[in-house]
Formats: sequence, structure tokens, C-alpha cells
Amino acid sequence: MHEVHAYAGKILRVNLSNGRISTEPTMKYAGKFLGGRGINQWILYNEVGPGIWPFDPANRLIFGTGVLVGTLAPGACRCTIDSKNVLTGGVGSSNMGGHFAPELKYAGYDHVVIHGRSLKPVYLWIDNGKVEIRDASDIWGKTTWETDDLIRDELEDHDIQVASIGQAGENLVRAACIITNGERAAGRCGLGAVMGSKNLKAVAVRGDREITVAHPDEFFELVSELRSNMIRVANEKTPDDVRCGTLLILERNNNTGGNTVRNFQDAYWDPEKVKKVCAEEILKNYALRKMGCFGCPLPCSFYLNVAQGEFAGTRGEGFKADSHKDFGPKLDVDYLPAIIKAHVLCSQYGLDVDSTSGVIAWAFECYEKGIFTKEDTDGLELEWGNYHAVLELIRKIAFREGVGDLLAEGSKRASKIVGRGSDRFSINIKGHELYESIWTAKAWALGCIVSTRGCDHLRGSPTCENAGITPEEGERFFGVPTAGDRRAYEGKAKLVVYFENFKGVVDCMNICYYMTQWKNIYFIGPEELAKLYTAATGRETTAAELMKIGERIQNLERAFNAREGLGRKDDMPPARFFEPIKSGPAKGERLEREKFERMLDEYYELRGWDVRTGNPTQAKLRELGIE
Amino acid sequence: MHEVHAYAGKILRVNLSNGRISTEPTMKYAGKFLGGRGINQWILYNEVGPGIWPFDPANRLIFGTGVLVGTLAPGACRCTIDSKNVLTGGVGSSNMGGHFAPELKYAGYDHVVIHGRSLKPVYLWIDNGKVEIRDASDIWGKTTWETDDLIRDELEDHDIQVASIGQAGENLVRAACIITNGERAAGRCGLGAVMGSKNLKAVAVRGDREITVAHPDEFFELVSELRSNMIRVANEKTPDDVRCGTLLILERNNNTGGNTVRNFQDAYWDPEKVKKVCAEEILKNYALRKMGCFGCPLPCSFYLNVAQGEFAGTRGEGFKADSHKDFGPKLDVDYLPAIIKAHVLCSQYGLDVDSTSGVIAWAFECYEKGIFTKEDTDGLELEWGNYHAVLELIRKIAFREGVGDLLAEGSKRASKIVGRGSDRFSINIKGHELYESIWTAKAWALGCIVSTRGCDHLRGSPTCENAGITPEEGERFFGVPTAGDRRAYEGKAKLVVYFENFKGVVDCMNICYYMTQWKNIYFIGPEELAKLYTAATGRETTAAELMKIGERIQNLERAFNAREGLGRKDDMPPARFFEPIKSGPAKGERLEREKFERMLDEYYELRGWDVRTGNPTQAKLRELGIE
Repeated sequence: MHEVHAYAGKILRVNLSNGRISTEPTMKYAGKFLGGRGINQWILYNEVGPGIWPFDPANRLIFGTGVLVGTLAPGACRCTIDSKNVLTGGVGSSNMGGHFAPELKYAGYDHVVIHGRSLKPVYLWIDNGKVEIRDASDIWGKTTWETDDLIRDELEDHDIQVASIGQAGENLVRAACIITNGERAAGRCGLGAVMGSKNLKAVAVRGDREITVAHPDEFFELVSELRSNMIRVANEKTPDDVRCGTLLILERNNNTGGNTVRNFQDAYWDPEKVKKVCAEEILKNYALRKMGCFGCPLPCSFYLNVAQGEFAGTRGEGFKADSHKDFGPKLDVDYLPAIIKAHVLCSQYGLDVDSTSGVIAWAFECYEKGIFTKEDTDGLELEWGNYHAVLELIRKIAFREGVGDLLAEGSKRASKIVGRGSDRFSINIKGHELYESIWTAKAWALGCIVSTRGCDHLRGSPTCENAGITPEEGERFFGVPTAGDRRAYEGKAKLVVYFENFKGVVDCMNICYYMTQWKNIYFIGPEELAKLYTAATGRETTAAELMKIGERIQNLERAFNAREGLGRKDDMPPARFFEPIKSGPAKGERLEREKFERMLDEYYELRGWDVRTGNPTQAKLRELGIE
Repeated sequence: MHEVHAYAGKILRVNLSNGRISTEPTMKYAGKFLGGRGINQWILYNEVGPGIWPFDPANRLIFGTGVLVGTLAPGACRCTIDSKNVLTGGVGSSNMGGHFAPELKYAGYDHVVIHGRSLKPVYLWIDNGKVEIRDASDIWGKTTWETDDLIRDELEDHDIQVASIGQAGENLVRAACIITNGERAAGRCGLGAVMGSKNLKAVAVRGDREITVAHPDEFFELVSELRSNMIRVANEKTPDDVRCGTLLILERNNNTGGNTVRNFQDAYWDPEKVKKVCAEEILKNYALRKMGCFGCPLPCSFYLNVAQGEFAGTRGEGFKADSHKDFGPKLDVDYLPAIIKAHVLCSQYGLDVDSTSGVIAWAFECYEKGIFTKEDTDGLELEWGNYHAVLELIRKIAFREGVGDLLAEGSKRASKIVGRGSDRFSINIKGHELYESIWTAKAWALGCIVSTRGCDHLRGSPTCENAGITPEEGERFFGVPTAGDRRAYEGKAKLVVYFENFKGVVDCMNICYYMTQWKNIYFIGPEELAKLYTAATGRETTAAELMKIGERIQNLERAFNAREGLGRKDDMPPARFFEPIKSGPAKGERLEREKFERMLDEYYELRGWDVRTGNPTQAKLRELGIE
């Protein structure tokens, strides 16, 4: 029986242009970049130069598991997918849960690097050590759900794992994502469109090799303790979160000025509307059961079912805070079945909910401000809350039909085409549509704004600023006493640096990020990761060493962006966030431009980068061994 | 019976993403941009912004006939195709002869704008006023020659005109071109790859409408006089050129230090080798008959046949100076059947001979300098003159097989991937492989270097510098007494400005450029174009007005490039041309850096551009009405 080692794995390379398949050991890169996102990004940096555009055959699409993936470590299920970013032209990186990554690891591969572009639609079939490029002509044009079924039928195995694109990816829609298990999305950066440009419909995997860790007893003991502790503490301290997953976020955001109402025109939504769509409503009327990813001790997803009304028969899972807010307050829709339907359509067509709702919200605001009339929207009335129009636009975007062809370019590019000041309504950073509100919590805002992949809170943004963390806890965890004070600018740059580095390590291990910060009680911090790593690989390491690797990855990604011409000028929030919030409990709060700029200076200084350009210096890259 | 007017034509728009087909009148644009390249570029500038990459669905591929196309004007046959440039990221523009453009005009269309990207391979069928997107699944994977036959068979009409891509375009090879009539190529800028990225295999056209000119008698008289004069003078003054077409250029270049030997390592080729491949050899042993494009009074092409030896059975036409030099001296091949074979393969696979031979020559020099060994080249021995290796590499590039996958990226990008100083052997400007020698003739060099589409002599480079033009003639034709002195830098910037503007107008009329400058006796200059235009359209114009439009187009293209980040820094020759020629009659000649820079300053000044950045000023664009 073949065995798979947690550390010394294999990289599979598949060139779709000429069918060439080869492997190389991860050990070439593991010392400096661990695995997962780290190795992905190193390959990307070295092999995809600045003259290469996202849809060029020479672009790479890189799937990466991680050091702990497939082991008993909590939530060790993530798959990081990296490529050139279809929206920003810089680093593209996204991460999905489910069961795909462990299966890939069990098949014997830590990474799959897709080169080139097939002449006809294909899918990749990885059957343990056997790799085959198979015809996908008959699957082309299908949803991700149909694709899953058709491939499992064809291969006569319904336990295999499939990551696929829907029609959006085939049509090179910039919001296209990659989906596994029906609803787990590597959502952001338009990676589904990269996959579509390569005529690659899916990657299917069967793996049944055993995974080996270096010190099994020690590892098992560590993992058992972490798991039981997490479950116990979470149930004691945050039973509502255990029960509701991420669905409480909408309400909580509304109470702290963090909502995204009508394309971010306000941070506070009508409480009556909140009540209509809140977590309790979902649990009471739509949730059939809890669901989780591979190896999760605290599952956060629900299988939803709409039993009645216009959308009766709509079913699906993976519905979390983002879909909830994206298709609820952001578009002023307070009818839950329509919000669920929008989520399910995105899963089926393979659309990122954040970018898709972002460009739709842009179109709605253009309509509100008179830039669009019904003549521009194929006759649709884009009035806030008109969910029929929302659902129709999702379809039109996926198929590039009518106005959907324009919206498929994303709000930044669409606003350049449309002109007439419509760019003011494109709420993006570096061309990437913003999901989150960034008026109030300053580290959260900074983390979103400097994020190498455009914008988002899953890199440097901490959740602690609104969660009642004390100054003592802030000092103890991060060396930042103001960590729990959303109004403070002080210390926030340091907090962002900490979380960016930490998240870099998490993405190399590829355990679920939520395992590390369940309601800000850090179950798995750098120390725990170092112990897990040492037990799994047999290579001694420390928290400090890991955080250095996180820093290296951050610098590498930023250097990639710099090579593409991105820099400080692109680390800017949309103008809307310098204006005060209009209503609600955080009314009047806003980002102050001067303080923000100083925080940004401080961030670059802490990073050791050029404050003027926002780019890593040669000295810093040399220090990190990636000059 | 429908009629087609030389002036007030139609633009056909086809969106392959969603099947939407529409038309609009050319009159919207004709006042400022005439037609052909002018209108193409205006559409490109307005609809393809800087966030759009060449293979994005939002990129456009624009076919343009021209004001005089399809009329009796000499050589009124050209089709200009414009898009974002796959090699430079700036303006992409290429121009092909044959019979396609007149047929398109007779079908009732002056321009065809392709939007979007089909989900499956298709071809476009324009049957007079009827337009259809048809399945091309069975044609995908075929050569351009096979495609032509298959489509004509399918449509049961062997008189229709087809423009198609071969396997190179399907594989998004950066050197891919668009081919019509078997060998007429819109060669440069990688437009075949753009077409491939849209899954568009071909455009097929049938047109049998009558074309109407405004003043038929006057037009007929003008045209008759021009034609008979051209034929008479050409036969009297340059009978050898009438007989040999462009095939004398290789020998003449060799005698003036303008050859491209072994990837431009020398400008002079062994005269014994020249003798083996010279024009007389071709005419004596391979040419079956003369061939020409639509409406040509002085055809320059031959149908060639290799009757004996290893390549017996190789047949084709469209073989001109570029194929001759590209696969002869540039690769040190002195065996004519192999040179002809290389040309024919490029036509079949749909590869631009200049860029393809350029990247192959780069690989050969890398091999010579020890950067490549047989391990890097799939076992091929890339020794100068090894034509078997050349032919094998052409195939490998078209199919992205083995090392061909690297070479398919073009020499600039390939050299970045390979590193180790290999960029010194990439003879490109702005990423576009150079076809021509630029050591000696200064206006020729400057015209190539500042060319908006990367490099080439078909924009601002005059042929007069080596052709014995007297100072009086130079002064009379262009206001440049030094026009016939290749060593002079003085006046050359002015000469380039003149020819860039003039060529802009020619490409709007889309008569063949060679009609205008047959051996430097300018049969059709701005005055003649103004007369033809007035007679054809009924709109009075003057030479000066037309040249202003040429200037407008040049500024527009340059503004497009500026928006993509191109500028003065990219108006630089490869370092090789600052080093002296090693041997032959021009031994020791070179571009002198300081004098070149001064000439460049002068060029920008004459253009009214910013000398520091090389970009058009707002004032200049405003003056031209394109701010």
C-alpha cells in the first residue's frame, strides 16, 4: 500500500496544451514555504511573469492542499487555489473547504499545477497515482451540480471528489469561482474564469492512500486535546454561535455599523427587515440540518430547504454570512427564500457571491442615480429589493446575456465602459468588489485595504475589534492593547501585520481559519500550529519560525503585485468610506483620511517596505531569502 | 438589388458570448476616421480599456475593409484587423490582402466587430445581409487550408471567401495569425490567438451586391489613368521588380547591410548562400505562375512548387521577402525547398512568419551560446542551418508541444522564463519580434522603433533611403532633402512622421501599400488619394485633410499605448543595433545611441508629444478632436 506523508509530498504538473504530465517533490520548496498557499505562491511568482495575462495559456492554475490536510487536525480540509487574479491583475488566491483537499492528499498529491490550455473541454481525473485528461464535451455547459453528478456517473464512483466550474467559468465571467461539494467555493479572484480559459471543466479525485504523520501518538494527543477543548469552550462561551454558525453576523454587523445596505450607501438596515431574514428565521423555517466540512468539530453550515411559495423546491447548503448579507441588505432584499435562491444559483452557475452581488448592487445604484434606465437593463427595473431582477441578473451574468455581458466584467471595468461617473458606485479595492463594511473597525479596514488579492477580511483583518476583547487580552495575544477598540487607529497596523503573517501560516497548513479564531478565543494560534507541525512532520519548529514564513509569503505576494504595477496608490478604500455613516448606532463614524494615511505609513514601516510606493524593498526580500 | 456605397457603409457587431447581432452606420465615425484602420482603432480605443487583456471576452476583434475596397482602384483589396496586441499589450493591428475584404464589402459590411467569446468552436457566416453563427466543432483542430475547404464544402459554394485560424490560433500561440486565400496573412500582433480565444475558427463571406461610387465617370477615368501609368512606368523603370515581386529584397538587403543573418548577429550573408536561394533560383526552379490579390495591376506573388527532393510535393503561394529572409539568412538556411516548406507550414498552421522565425532564431542563438542544450530542445540540435529542426519547431510551436509550449510565448516572454541572460538574444521591440534590419537606414530604423504595434517597417519606415532618391526628389516629395541618404539622421524624424500619417490614410482606404510606393516612385500619394476619395464618396477633400486624419489615427494609437503603460522607454531598439555590423559592405555601420536619442526627441517634438514620456499631450489630442 502506498503511503502519503504529511510533509514530503508530491506536486503534480499537468500541461493541458500538450498533455504532458509530470511530478516533482514538495521538498524543493517546503523549507521556505511549508505547503498550501506558500508553495502555490512561490510557483506562481516564479512561473507567471508580468507579461502573462490571466487567460493566457502560460498562466498557471495551482491547487494546493497543506501540511495538515487530511490528518485529524481540526478542520484540516482546505484547498488553496492560486493564479493570476482576473480582477486585479495581481495575486489571485482563494480557498475552499469541503472534502476535495483531503481526497487529493490521499491520492498522493499536495499540489496540482495546471499549465496551458486544452483545445477542447476536458476534465482531469486523478485516480490515486493515475492521472488522465478526459473529454468533457458533454459536460460543457452544465452547472457545477450537474457536473458533479455526470462525472461521478461516468467514473462509476459516487465517493470521488470533484472541483468544477459552472457556466460562469466557461464564459470567463470575472466573478466566476470554483465549486466543490455543491456549495464550497474558492470564490474570489475570478479563478473559475481562469479554469474556463483553460477549457478545464473539473478536477476529479479519488484517493485512498493512508496518511502518515511523524509522531502519531504525540499528534493524536495534541489533536484530541484541541478538539475536545474547542467543543467544550465554544459550547460554554458562545452557544449561539455553535448553534447558528456565521448567520448571526448580519444582525451583529447591523448593531455595530458594519452592514452593507444598498451597495454600502448605509451601514444600518431597517430592524424590521433584519428581523425578517435573521438567523433564527433561517433555523426555524429553512434549515433541515447542520453540515460541515471534512474533519470539522464545529460545523457552521446548514442544509436549507424552501418548502413554500414562489421558490419552493430551492435547496442547498454552504449558505453563510456572505450570501446572507450580499443578497440581503446589500440589495435591500428582505425575503429569505429569494436570498437563498440567489445563493443556490451562484453555486450552480459557479459565481462568487461577493463579486456577483457587488456588480449587481453597482447596477442597482446606477439605476437609482439615473445612469441606467430600463433600456440599459434589458427592461429590468433595478429597484432596491426587487429580487426578481437580482435573480435574473445572476443568470444573465453567468451566460453573458444582454446587460449580463457588461456586468460579467465586474463593476470597475463596467463603470469604465459606462462612464458618466458610474465609477463612484463601484465599491471595489484594486478592482475586486468589497464584501465587508470598512467604516468603523480600523484594523479590519486596513486588513481589507492592503490585502494582496484585492480586498477582503480573510488575510489581515481581525474579528476582535467588535468582540469585547480586553486591553489585557489584546496585549497578551498580539502585543496590541487597543485590539478590542474599533475606534482606535493606534496599534492597528501591528495587528494587521500579525494576522497577515498568521493567516499565511494557516493557509500553508490549510486548516480552517475559523478553527483558529472561534469567536476570538484563539484555540489554535502560532504555538499550537508549531506543535502540530512538529508532530506531523518530525521537523522541529517554533511559532516564531512559522510567523517568519508567514511574513515571507506576504512579501512574496506583495512583490508579485509590485511587478504588476500595483502599490500604495491601490491601497485605498472607496471614497464612500471617508464619508460618515448615515444612520444607526454608528451614525457619523467614518474613516478619517489623514489618520488612515498615517496608519498605512505605519503598516509599510512595520513591514520594512518603501512607504512611498508601498512595495517591499530589496533589502527586505533579501532578508527573507526571496530576492 | 441591394447596393453598397463606397462611403456610407455598415458596421456589423456580433457578440459570440450571447449570440447578439446588430448593425450601425459607419457614418458615425467616417468624418474623423474615414474607414478601415481608422474606424477600427476608434472602436478599439473606446471599447477596450486598459483593464481588458487580449484574451478577455471583452476584447474586440475588428475586421475593417476601407473606403476604396472593392472598387476598381488599384489594389483595393486589403482588410485591416485590429485588437489588443497579444505581444505588446498595446495596439494590435494587421492587414491582409487577397479577396476577403472586397467580398465583405459586397456583402454589405465595412466592418465586423467581434465581441465576447463563444462557449464552443464556431464560425461566422455572412451571406450578404444574412448573418449566422455556425458550429465549428468538426473544423476545430484543422489547418487553415482544410478549414477553407471544409467550410466551402459545407456551404456548397467554392467562391466564398474565408478568413480563418489554424492550430496555432486555437492554441493561443502568440505568433498566431489570421489567414485568407491559403497564404494571405494578417500576420503580426498575434491576432490569430485573439480569434482562438474567442473560439472563432473562421469568418466566411459571400457578397454579390453592387458597389456604388459617387462620381462613376470621374472615378473610372482616374483609376484607368493610374493603372495604365503604373504598369507602364513600372515596366520601363523597374522591370526586374515587376518580374520578381519582392524576392529581390534579400539580395539587395545583403548588399546594403540590411540582412538579418543568424538572428541579426550579422547584416551580411555569405554570397554563395545568397546565390543558392536568390530570386532567379526561385523563378527558375519553383515558380509555376504569378499570382495577385484582388484588383492588382502589378502582382507580386508566385505559386511555388517543389518538384524534387525531400520536400517534393510542397506547394503554395504568398511567399514574399519576409518568408524568404526569415527562414533563409535569419536561420542560416540556404536550401530553398526547406525555406518554402517553412513558409507553407506557417500558412497552414496559421503562424506569422516574422514572429515564428524570430522566436526560433532566439532558440538557436540560445543553443549556440550554451543556454540551451539538447535536453531543453526535446533532443533537437539547434545548429544554424539545421532546417529539419526549424520545421520541427514550427510544428511544435503550433501545437505547443514540448519546447514549443515555451516558444509559443514569443522570445521576450520565453527569455524571461528561461533567464540566464537569454533576453539579449530576443530581438524584439515592445515584445514584438523584429523582422527587419535597423543598423543602417535611419528613418527606416526610427519608423520600426516607434511603430505603435511594436515594431515594423509598414508604418513610418520609408523605402527611399537605399533607393537612390536624389536630394531634389526628397525635398519635392517629403520636404526632406536627406530622404535618400541612409547615413543621415537629419530630417529622418520628419520623414517618419510623413509616412506614419500617410500610411494611416492608406489603411483607411485599404488599397495595397505597395501600390503607393512602387520602387519609390509614388504612383499614389496623398493628392491621388484625395482625388480618389472625392470621386468615390462625393465628399470633397484635400491631401492636407487626409494627412490630418492620418495624424489623428497615429495619435489615437499612441494614446491607446500610453494608457497601457507604453511610452518612450519602449521606443528602443535591441542593444545589438548599437553595435557595429561585423562584415560586408556596411561593416562597422551602426545606430549611434546619442544621435538616435536626438532623432527620437525630434520625432516627439514634431508630433507635439511629451518628449520625456513619448506620449501625446492633452493639447495635441484636443487639437485633433480625440481628447
